[in-house]
Amino acid sequence: MKKSIGARPLVFTTPVWVVATYDPEGRPNAMTASWGGICCSRPPCVSISLRKATATYGYLTARKAFTVGVPSEAQLAAVDYFGKASGRDVDKIAAAGMTTHASDLVDAPIINELPMTLECRLIHTLEIGLHTLFVGEILDIKADEAVLGECGLPDPAKVRPVSYAPEVRLYHGLGGLLGSAGSLASRIDSPKPRTE
Amino acid sequence: MKKSIGARPLVFTTPVWVVATYDPEGRPNAMTASWGGICCSRPPCVSISLRKATATYGYLTARKAFTVGVPSEAQLAAVDYFGKASGRDVDKIAAAGMTTHASDLVDAPIINELPMTLECRLIHTLEIGLHTLFVGEILDIKADEAVLGECGLPDPAKVRPVSYAPEVRLYHGLGGLLGSAGSLASRIDSPKPRTE
Repeated sequence: MKKSIGARPLVFTTPVWVVATYDPEGRPNAMTASWGGICCSRPPCVSISLRKATATYGYLTARKAFTVGVPSEAQLAAVDYFGKASGRDVDKIAAAGMTTHASDLVDAPIINELPMTLECRLIHTLEIGLHTLFVGEILDIKADEAVLGECGLPDPAKVRPVSYAPEVRLYHGLGGLLGSAGSLASRIDSPKPRTE
Repeated sequence: MKKSIGARPLVFTTPVWVVATYDPEGRPNAMTASWGGICCSRPPCVSISLRKATATYGYLTARKAFTVGVPSEAQLAAVDYFGKASGRDVDKIAAAGMTTHASDLVDAPIINELPMTLECRLIHTLEIGLHTLFVGEILDIKADEAVLGECGLPDPAKVRPVSYAPEVRLYHGLGGLLGSAGSLASRIDSPKPRTE
């Protein structure tokens, strides 16, 4: 029996990211974001959605740049804090014991302690409602060598990213490996072609 | 030491969803999608990005409607299959042993076996590159009673959603509960206000 649970911004899985920008004085700021996802493969792009009320909204639109940091489980207290405090009032990054360096590709900071960061150039802005969707072209990804797997790409088991469950407001870690894409489909019997 | 791993459509976590639409003959079709995320809270909206080459692209734009089903771990073989086969050739949903009923809110099917489904009305289309981003307003969410938690909302531990790791092409389940949003921030010491 299906039950209606209403019109809500609720889906699983939803990411936990740290969006970093420079304020007008060139000071780095960070906020937590879970509204977003990869939105194009060529050029590689990621979308994030922000409320106009956030400090990051103004900082991002002014410099047309941002970074998306993927935090690890162990950094979740700092990330949760980035989602509560405002960068207008305090240096959140320093308060969390973190440091930054400037991206050499976009006008935004990279938080050194996060294991993996996407450097993004703003290429589209779409007004939706309470949130505005920003599309960033991913110009590069910087990752700690410690989180790279055999193929030289970030290994999710080493990055240990966090997932957010909206509405119930819970954080979960990544669970066990279930398989590789394309390898499980063969368990479905070959179907007969469609007949008109 | 940070290492450049190039401009890639790669971030963690990325969802595993089943997008369902009707073809021109009114037959239900399904495809797997991982490019998307919640993109607005009011109205509640979700974005998905599709290549023009997919059957779903045409079906979705014709009826301006789609559903986003959240599969459970146990359904991953079917979901992996939905990502490989084309609905132009075969009835993928039947081949996977699944069934549908029509949404009473949007012109798209709901796959009965998926534990949770968002019913979406297309409200924005944004051309990006290889992919086109579609914004769907979430008019309702239908969920199996068996996956609801105490507060009447879907419990991620019962839904058991899957996360996809792009580029390395791995599926992972959801891991352990790490805490609730807003409850961890207090571990960060109250910082001093910014001084100019």
